[in-house]
Amino acid sequence: MFRTAELGRTVSRADYHEQVPILRAELLELQQQLRADAPFPVIVVFGGVDGAGKSETINLLHEWMDPRWLTTRAYGEPSDEMRDRPEYWRFWRDLPPKGRIGLFLSCWYSRPTLDRVYERSSEAELDEALDRVFAFEKELADDGALIIKFWMHLGKKAQKERLEALQKDPLTRWRVTKTDWDHWHMYDRFIAAAERLITRTSTGHAPWHIVEGFDKRYRGLTVGITLRNAIVRHLEEMRLRRDLIAARDGRLHDLSADDRETVEPSPADPVPGETRIGGTVLRMPRITILSQLDSSQAVDRKDYKLALEKCQGKVNRRCRRAKELGVSTILVFEGWDAAGKGGAVRRVTAALDARDFQIIPVASPTDEEQAHHYLWRFWRHLSRAGRVTIFDRSWYGRVLVERVEGFASEQEWRRAYAEINDFEDQLVRHGIVLCKFWLHITKDEQLKRFKTREKVAYKRWKLTEEDWRNREKWDDYEAAVNDMVERTSTSIAPWTLVEANDKRFARIKVLKTIRDAVEAGIARTGHPYVPEGKASKHTLESTA
Amino acid sequence: MFRTAELGRTVSRADYHEQVPILRAELLELQQQLRADAPFPVIVVFGGVDGAGKSETINLLHEWMDPRWLTTRAYGEPSDEMRDRPEYWRFWRDLPPKGRIGLFLSCWYSRPTLDRVYERSSEAELDEALDRVFAFEKELADDGALIIKFWMHLGKKAQKERLEALQKDPLTRWRVTKTDWDHWHMYDRFIAAAERLITRTSTGHAPWHIVEGFDKRYRGLTVGITLRNAIVRHLEEMRLRRDLIAARDGRLHDLSADDRETVEPSPADPVPGETRIGGTVLRMPRITILSQLDSSQAVDRKDYKLALEKCQGKVNRRCRRAKELGVSTILVFEGWDAAGKGGAVRRVTAALDARDFQIIPVASPTDEEQAHHYLWRFWRHLSRAGRVTIFDRSWYGRVLVERVEGFASEQEWRRAYAEINDFEDQLVRHGIVLCKFWLHITKDEQLKRFKTREKVAYKRWKLTEEDWRNREKWDDYEAAVNDMVERTSTSIAPWTLVEANDKRFARIKVLKTIRDAVEAGIARTGHPYVPEGKASKHTLESTA
Repeated sequence: MFRTAELGRTVSRADYHEQVPILRAELLELQQQLRADAPFPVIVVFGGVDGAGKSETINLLHEWMDPRWLTTRAYGEPSDEMRDRPEYWRFWRDLPPKGRIGLFLSCWYSRPTLDRVYERSSEAELDEALDRVFAFEKELADDGALIIKFWMHLGKKAQKERLEALQKDPLTRWRVTKTDWDHWHMYDRFIAAAERLITRTSTGHAPWHIVEGFDKRYRGLTVGITLRNAIVRHLEEMRLRRDLIAARDGRLHDLSADDRETVEPSPADPVPGETRIGGTVLRMPRITILSQLDSSQAVDRKDYKLALEKCQGKVNRRCRRAKELGVSTILVFEGWDAAGKGGAVRRVTAALDARDFQIIPVASPTDEEQAHHYLWRFWRHLSRAGRVTIFDRSWYGRVLVERVEGFASEQEWRRAYAEINDFEDQLVRHGIVLCKFWLHITKDEQLKRFKTREKVAYKRWKLTEEDWRNREKWDDYEAAVNDMVERTSTSIAPWTLVEANDKRFARIKVLKTIRDAVEAGIARTGHPYVPEGKASKHTLESTA
Repeated sequence: MFRTAELGRTVSRADYHEQVPILRAELLELQQQLRADAPFPVIVVFGGVDGAGKSETINLLHEWMDPRWLTTRAYGEPSDEMRDRPEYWRFWRDLPPKGRIGLFLSCWYSRPTLDRVYERSSEAELDEALDRVFAFEKELADDGALIIKFWMHLGKKAQKERLEALQKDPLTRWRVTKTDWDHWHMYDRFIAAAERLITRTSTGHAPWHIVEGFDKRYRGLTVGITLRNAIVRHLEEMRLRRDLIAARDGRLHDLSADDRETVEPSPADPVPGETRIGGTVLRMPRITILSQLDSSQAVDRKDYKLALEKCQGKVNRRCRRAKELGVSTILVFEGWDAAGKGGAVRRVTAALDARDFQIIPVASPTDEEQAHHYLWRFWRHLSRAGRVTIFDRSWYGRVLVERVEGFASEQEWRRAYAEINDFEDQLVRHGIVLCKFWLHITKDEQLKRFKTREKVAYKRWKLTEEDWRNREKWDDYEAAVNDMVERTSTSIAPWTLVEANDKRFARIKVLKTIRDAVEAGIARTGHPYVPEGKASKHTLESTA
């Protein structure tokens, strides 16, 4: 979930100083619009890793905006006054009124997270506390509030470097406390709790935006632009809602052209590559997780055959054992056109017994499928216990092709992240092994492969007009993949990004991932997998 | 929660046979409309007490409607096929496609409820299972599905009579099994689980309708009319939504007059007194929980003084002890104009130390309050530990005056039931004692009191024009009170309905209720209340 926030995105000093004045002017103007007639408050929540710039960013917003219409609240341990009342009393008390912006640091998310990190609460108790958060935010959002949540992230190594740097400088040494280091040692536990927190409370009405906290200029601009876009959007929503109510009362009238033009449509993307403010365009670095992959990785042709056979053998033995134990496996293959999905799938099925797997090629939905919820067609293909089901493309179509091509509305594909996480949660909790592969090739490699396909007769059928059309939308797809990984790579169902410029490397990586995942799935049944050699020895001994 | 479904509502044979043909024709017509162009499925869930007519009602709907576009699913223990897959696989498989109606009996609610009743699961596990239900229904509703849920209710005694009657008749004896009687013996546990189930899963997108199951004609018509109204309403919603999307795309155009007239606005009330279908009006009995109260109850003048002093003494001692232990009390007074709220409050405060209580008279919100969520002003008045806070009118204004006068939109006041339950849940879980009183007088009694007020000089200021206006809306208020009790009288925060035609009776009942509630609140701290006499004896002994 956080890998997409460790890409090292930065903004140069020159770009920053060019863009900030435009953004500032816009934010100040929006504050006035909010004051004038917004029937809602703006609630901005900051959470995240220590040292990722939470308080610095709040200070920055204070600098940029008019502090008279801005309140900031940070919470420590509750006082006696607070302990005398239900936990949320202090948060209710501090809510901004309509037309104002409230910035909240370490607020309702703080206690649930820390309780979990310090192991004062169980996972079920964390969930219960998050249900409370969910209900609280939903009530406010139902009442019209705009809620924006920023999760400021730093990788483990980056956090260490940040703390060390602060400690080295005599001027900032005081800022690093023992607690900071204690927390750093609990980094992994913190991230696990954070992932759960984000999964369960990133909702349509109160989404989390994960912000890479490494570069202060990048994170400042990102937060500022996201905030600006969210406010513009919500003002527009509220106007439409008002019109809907008018329609309901039978007093629907056409939106005047003026109405429509005052609010230019804002981009959906929280950190868009480009944001148009007035006549100016703000440009942010558009680095995605795919651009960070090392596509030069390869497996030598002479090593490949042996490695492949070894891997296939291991996969075969583990899948047979899994079948005996009733452990099912679901493999999801997604990737660029011509990335080698089909070839990789064939290397997997070669390792399996034909009776034990089925391949579900996912194309356009049938009429019957179209008449149901989009997940219905995947539910129906769930196999009986112990089988392997291979989805060649999958439910992720909702947030990839349907998003990019506009087949799903923005609301629909945004909602889909949570729906998919929920679906996969049910699979994994049922004991199913789930592997999700994104086969990645570079844009050049794709072109090379398309050209080969054009030339080679028996490959020509594979290349369609659509492939060329999709290729033109490469950047949109890349952004969609990045968001998909950010939103749906969870600890229980992580994405495996496969560097596939070298087909041999890709196939071996896929097989090894399956081998490990099935082995782990077997272990969860309480009957850990014993490798073949040892197992047969054991059998000989016991029958002796 | 279920008291409103034990009022003995019936429909006469003559009325029934007059109304059914009209309703049938309408339902058949709606089925055709759904088939023709509804972009959503209709999912109807039946749950409730055995013998309350769940399957009979499903049979009735089958008789009334066109069975070709209707599917019915009932679920028993999962088969091997089902156990091999995640629990919800079988429900997903059976979902109706767009344009069809699916009736579901003992479905996703069945296992969570029975597990709890048989004590195979804890309350936390029940909650977790209900979260799963919530997510499932939300996903479907987000996709456009219309979800209607009927909870068929029978009182404990009525259920026993029903089972005995069936057993007596040789023709129906076979229908009563040992399980039925086993379940009857667990009635109270079943109702406790049911209340939690309804509280947590009655949402705007999938509301529960509690139906009194005693009279088969009443329950059949109620379900039929509710279903009809929900479909009409949802079709209309969908048209409006389509227009909203058009507006978003900048292609908003006026709804044609035709469009608006084809769908007449349907009443909000699930079981309205009157439903207009075409030119005909269907009339249902409008019995509310208030009409069932015995308003003749009275306390004799000569007994009153002593009883009052005794009660006040007891309340005083318990509240002092509660203060020592940090247990707060919140008293909510609602009731008809001139029902004697003020007088009752004064009898309570006379029992308390002036430093330990505050009275919050709730009138129109201030400007500042208006700029916040409607619950904000109640959160801010929560006292420190150990105090008594008396709300003279309260957050229930949202579902009473704001509903009846149209100050809150229908969406707002419907949502408020869940918001209020959630708010009160936080109070009670914090250890606060919460008593909610509705002071009830009959309409005649109110008139008498209004007239007295007009005549007596020192009472005249109490009577305003508004009182007379409210009186004209008596029936609307009565329906609102009925719904309020149905939706917010929970096991942790029950309503006390106070028969207040006799002021003395009302005051004693209020004081006794407070006495018992505070005593129970003290007991929950682990320091049970010891009555004065025994306590002093105990003190003497221990100091001796």
